[in-house]
Amino acid sequence: MSETGRPPAPRPGRPRSARAEQAILAATIDLLAEEAGVAGVSIEAVAARAGVGKTTIYRRWPNKEKLIVDALATLKRPIPELPGRTVREDLMVLARTFAREQDRKHSRCFLNVMGGADRHPELMDRYRREVIEPRREVIRGVLHRGIETGELRADLDIEVALPMLVGSMTLQARALAPMDSLPPDFAEQVVDTLLRGIAA
Amino acid sequence: MSETGRPPAPRPGRPRSARAEQAILAATIDLLAEEAGVAGVSIEAVAARAGVGKTTIYRRWPNKEKLIVDALATLKRPIPELPGRTVREDLMVLARTFAREQDRKHSRCFLNVMGGADRHPELMDRYRREVIEPRREVIRGVLHRGIETGELRADLDIEVALPMLVGSMTLQARALAPMDSLPPDFAEQVVDTLLRGIAA
Repeated sequence: MSETGRPPAPRPGRPRSARAEQAILAATIDLLAEEAGVAGVSIEAVAARAGVGKTTIYRRWPNKEKLIVDALATLKRPIPELPGRTVREDLMVLARTFAREQDRKHSRCFLNVMGGADRHPELMDRYRREVIEPRREVIRGVLHRGIETGELRADLDIEVALPMLVGSMTLQARALAPMDSLPPDFAEQVVDTLLRGIAA
Repeated sequence: MSETGRPPAPRPGRPRSARAEQAILAATIDLLAEEAGVAGVSIEAVAARAGVGKTTIYRRWPNKEKLIVDALATLKRPIPELPGRTVREDLMVLARTFAREQDRKHSRCFLNVMGGADRHPELMDRYRREVIEPRREVIRGVLHRGIETGELRADLDIEVALPMLVGSMTLQARALAPMDSLPPDFAEQVVDTLLRGIAA
């Protein structure tokens, strides 16, 4: 009941707590994208930027490391359901997903977090475990299945093919090149080139 | 002549100015590797850390951007003379060179500088032009020659193969994986896999 004694008017859209959570995660990303990275994020700064009280944040996240990992996770697109018919088709879906993730804010966040990784080992461990490894496991699954079906070489070292796919598609490879030097079908060409290299 | 009227005793090792330059570049790298990246570098801070006066720095570098680009260049190993006999041999030399560059301090510097790239566009332009592009040109040269000799596919898109090689070998691909998950012959396996993908 509101203070007037009437029930509060129904709000359009998300309930208040979901909107606050959204604002907190977005504020965290904004701060991470700034030059100081993890060092620039504090519960105070996030609260001020998100327009919420600190307790609203602490109710959901016990410390800034957990908040940061959850915020970083929002930058990753969900991996779509893989068709599972051919390795090529699945790798295309993955490569296109990774390509779409590489906008500038995502890149800045990622670089700033990684650049401070040595100072925040627990944060990085959690990030690897909760955000990165589940995605790498999806890729490994596709490659394993390809070996089983005979689409890929039986002696393929999955731990080599995996960073080749991820490294080709992610910002490191592109950050230093003018973006327009990459062909529009870059993701497809990477998959087909890699596939020729790892096919049976 | 020194103030005592005698000629100064010969100093062992590098002359004083070369030693100062070395100290200045090393101090700049130390500061770049810290979390604030470019924002943490100032002529004052470099002078203090290198134990030199600010004028010693200004005598050689008119501003911090030029100093930073020169400092970043010291992190890159010189590309060895390429044998030029086969594409495979040349790519192996390049991949091994890139692999050896990926120590933690190099990675931190690079990530911190890239993370602030949007704020320092002139610095990034200069870095691309003076440090990165000459290296990319060496790789392009190897790939072009491979197409001419028929070792590589005639329709190879060099601008796809190039980021695949660089991206596979650089920290992005490795930063998020435990280093020991990569096989010791990672560079060789990357080149052979890529080569199967781009060979004629």
